[in-house]
Formats: sequence, C-alpha cells, structure tokens
Amino acid sequence: MGEFELIRQYFQPLADKARQGQLILGPGDDCAIQRLPPGRDLVFSVDTLVEGVHFPPNYPPEYLGWRSLAVAVSDLAAMGADPVCFTLALSLPHAEPEWLAGYSRGLARASDAFGIAIAGGDTTRGPLTITLQVHGTVEEGLALQRSGARVGEIVCVTGPLGDAGAALDFLDSSEPTCDQQAVLSRYHYPEPQLQLGAALAGKASSAIDISDGLLSDLQHILEASGVGADLDANKIPLSNALVALKGGEALGLALSAGDDYQLCLTIAEDRLLELDSQVRNQLTAIGRISPELGLRVANAESAGPRQGFDHFGRFD
Amino acid sequence: MGEFELIRQYFQPLADKARQGQLILGPGDDCAIQRLPPGRDLVFSVDTLVEGVHFPPNYPPEYLGWRSLAVAVSDLAAMGADPVCFTLALSLPHAEPEWLAGYSRGLARASDAFGIAIAGGDTTRGPLTITLQVHGTVEEGLALQRSGARVGEIVCVTGPLGDAGAALDFLDSSEPTCDQQAVLSRYHYPEPQLQLGAALAGKASSAIDISDGLLSDLQHILEASGVGADLDANKIPLSNALVALKGGEALGLALSAGDDYQLCLTIAEDRLLELDSQVRNQLTAIGRISPELGLRVANAESAGPRQGFDHFGRFD
Repeated sequence: MGEFELIRQYFQPLADKARQGQLILGPGDDCAIQRLPPGRDLVFSVDTLVEGVHFPPNYPPEYLGWRSLAVAVSDLAAMGADPVCFTLALSLPHAEPEWLAGYSRGLARASDAFGIAIAGGDTTRGPLTITLQVHGTVEEGLALQRSGARVGEIVCVTGPLGDAGAALDFLDSSEPTCDQQAVLSRYHYPEPQLQLGAALAGKASSAIDISDGLLSDLQHILEASGVGADLDANKIPLSNALVALKGGEALGLALSAGDDYQLCLTIAEDRLLELDSQVRNQLTAIGRISPELGLRVANAESAGPRQGFDHFGRFD
Repeated sequence: MGEFELIRQYFQPLADKARQGQLILGPGDDCAIQRLPPGRDLVFSVDTLVEGVHFPPNYPPEYLGWRSLAVAVSDLAAMGADPVCFTLALSLPHAEPEWLAGYSRGLARASDAFGIAIAGGDTTRGPLTITLQVHGTVEEGLALQRSGARVGEIVCVTGPLGDAGAALDFLDSSEPTCDQQAVLSRYHYPEPQLQLGAALAGKASSAIDISDGLLSDLQHILEASGVGADLDANKIPLSNALVALKGGEALGLALSAGDDYQLCLTIAEDRLLELDSQVRNQLTAIGRISPELGLRVANAESAGPRQGFDHFGRFD
C-alpha cells in the first residue's frame, strides 16, 4: 500500500459525515462541490497550526485531531453559522500509521460532534503543519461581524475564561489532580460555541471567538466598530478549578490567556431580554460599549500587566 | 510596524479584486462571506506547495506568487467553474519584505489575470509552505467530474504537453535560448484553461487538469469512470520548442511529465461537433474511450518507460 492509499484510508471515512446533504461531491475529484440552500450565505475561514508554535512538539495526535478542527469551527460559531464541510491540508515528515490513526480518530470525533464532513484535502511531505478550512452557512445577511458593536450595548461572554491558559502548566503532568484535569480538558478538547452562535445570529450586534485572550480579541471588535468598552473584572466568569489552581493569578489568565474558544459578543439590552431564557442563561454580561475609545477594566488590580499572545499574524 | 501589519499591507490589496460582487465580506473578520447567485454550485479545492518538494529552494518569489495561484485555479478550470475568491495560508521562516513584495506581486498579477480575489488567510511562522484554497461557481449540476467518461467518446487535450517538464533542465540557465525561454515560461507562468473549461461545462463528459502527467491524470478519469482508453502518440500536441530542445525525448515528456496544467477531457463525438468552432479549434483529439480497461498508447515506441510523478499523495 502506497502512502497515498494509506492516507486516503484514514481520512476518506470522514467524508460520510455530511448531515445536511449540501456536500454533493466530496474527496476524489479536482474540486469538491457544495450546493447551498436558497437564502443562505457561505461563511468560511482558514487556520494553520504549526508544531512548536500552536501546539507542543509530540503533542498527542488524537488531541490534535479534535483541537485542530474545533479551533477552526470556532470561527464559524463566532459568525453564527452552521458547519457544513471542511478541507484538510496536511504536511507530514513521513506517513506514520500510529500518528495518522490517532490524528484521524480525534478528527473524526470532532467531525461527528460538530456535524461537519471532510470535503477534500492535500497531503504533502514536509514539517508537521495542519491547515484546515471550514465552511458553514448562515441566513442571508445575518452573519455576526466584528463591526456591529454600538454605544450602550452589553458586552457578554459565553463561559468561563482562563482555563486553557492555566492548562499549559500541567501538560506534562503524569498524574494530574481533578482540578488539573478540568483545565487540561478545556485545552485538549475545546468546544466551539455553535449552538449559542447560531442562536445569536441576527440578534447580537457583533461577535468574536476568544482565541488570543479576552482583552486582545475584544479589542478587534472595538477597532472594527469604532467604539470603546468598560469591563468589570469582578464579572468575568472563572471556573472553580481555575481559582483553586491559580488563586490571585486566575483573573490575569481570564483576561489575557488564549485558547478558550468561548465567544465575546455585544448585544443591545432589549435584544438580550428578548432571547430565549435558555440562551440568555448561558451569557455573562461583563461590561458595556462606550463612545470613549479604548478598553478599560475596573477592579483588575490583581491581574498584573497585560500579556498579549500573537502567533505571528493573521489577516482574515 | 509589526509583522502582522507588514503582511496585511502586502495581501490586503488583493481583496479588492472581486469582480463579481460575490465576496460580500473579505479579510478582517472571523470568517469571510460569499453569496452565490441562485442556481450556481460552489466548487472548491485546496493545494499545498512545499519548498523543496513542489518548487526548488530559492525559487523566485514573483514566479511562485503566480504559479501557486495558477496551479490552484487550474482545478477550477478542470470543473468548468468560474473563479470567485481564494484563501492563502502561508508559513514563513521570517517576514522578509523583499520576498513578501515579490510573492505578493506575482500573486496580484495572477489574481488580476484570473479574476479571483483574496477572501482571507492565515500567516504563521514555520518552514516555507503555501496552502491556497480556491472557490468558483458553476451552473447547478454542470460541473465537469472525472467519473463521466463513456465508451466511444473522444479523448482531447487543450494544448501542447511536456514543455514544463523540459523546463526543469533549464531553471538555472543564466542566458536561456529562445526555445529554452519558451518552455521556461510554461513552467513559471502556467495558464489555467479557464475559458475552455467554462465553455465545456455541461458539454464534455469528464475533465481533469494535467498536473502529474497525461498518462497518470487520464488514468484517474478512466478509474473513476470504469472504462479504458486507446491513445495515438502521433496525435499528442508537442510545441516546436520542445521538439527542438528534446528531439526523441519530447514524446516521453509529453506523456509523463507534469506541471503543464492543460486539460484532458472526454466528449461525445456529436457534442464535439456542436461546440463553437473557436472552442473546438483549441482541442486536439488524441484517442478514444474503450470498454477494455487500461490505457494503451499506439506509436509510443520512442517514449521509453513511463515515469510517474507523485508528490506524496493527494486525496481530493
């Protein structure tokens, strides 16, 4: 069996997971074909993960399979889109069956969990680099963009922050405690906020997923919208595990560490009150949009200096 | 200016090239948004180029800019699709302005020539790796697939073959002859057959672009369609430059060398006769589809043993 066949064997099964019938031609031709239902916009994003930059060397391949797809799908959640299909461009130093089996197992689990099918890909020999492009759809004109925040609106997040950042200290723990396990699972198995994103399409005024840290990512909304914001650090949701592990450092991680993949969004107060209570209950209000440019955080004395995190640059 | 801004500066201008108004949100948000006209299918393909595998080390960045987009767009031509937009995932060891200026210049020229706009991207620090995903559209149900070839149909190609393969011998020529320049420009500036592909959508029964060599790529059509073919080597179009440079080796290159990005297609004889003469005149009939499985080439004694070319494996 050639390397070509070996790789096909691992990834072809993921082509059968298209739930919505939109993927009318999957892997195996010059291109794949997607047919959108009438009245839907195509929403898409590309993400690259490089070993040693975005994940540690020798990171377990099954975690990487989940994580690489989850991180990409999180961009669909941030637009309020429903996932449809993805492509995988994989550079590998060599086709190692054990690595491929683990990676494709994690990828298949994520593909099942998020309802997204593989549409095509390209594998090349090279240093370990994973590029995933995800496709979703959203009702025409209702995608959540970064530019829609308006003065007076509420700033919300969809869940506790800082756990994934705390996990970096315990990646090599051979016998992690329960609290350590809790934050590690946030790092290894991020959950894109697809249901919440879709429920907020056309209702929230802007959204972004928190990949580089709350302050850094909210700043993108503020810049795109030409507004500022005032946050209250006391309202930032922190998990019990994070507080138990990190004490006074917890808030700093919640403000500035990346990799949590919760959403940060803005919404008018009356729109917030009109949301289904089941959706509203998953949102935590942490501040308000202001006409005064810049981002101010009250009650953040314990957080220490801001630590940004930049993977070199991204322009989509 | 940070590296992030540096890179944005080079690639953001390519976002303004969307000719068809389908790209309703380009780079700068979590995702891009494409709105398809009613009755069109989305057609997409991803390609990765790795330095030292798909192009020589220190290959001039302006050539690479053109080539990387042309090779990807060629897959749209092979489906009969019109280009719309593309994403660029670029890993670079460091953000070198001279390289970025050359690469983005070649990319912009190709983007103009093919009418395709950048929709988003991701840049990461890492070994030089370029992943491009191209999007096009085609009338619903009319995309050219590999699986449609039927017994008795004519096998055609859209232009001379083997030039790009011959060019590999002259990449380092400091003063190439006119014939050498002719084949070098086929290698450096491949021209995807977009107009012919679009004219053949719904008329040809199958198509593929010749990236790995005629025999190897036609074999993909034969396998997908469950048929065989008989070719006549005397009918394979060869450029004067190729024959002058390579003499008796020309046919072997035309049959087995890659990188030409002409199309190979199958079409029923009556459909061929119905084509506009301006389209038909650009096609060369080189053989016929047979019920007998396998690929046979008459008059190929001079071609020597078949040389396949496999970049490690591709599964879309």
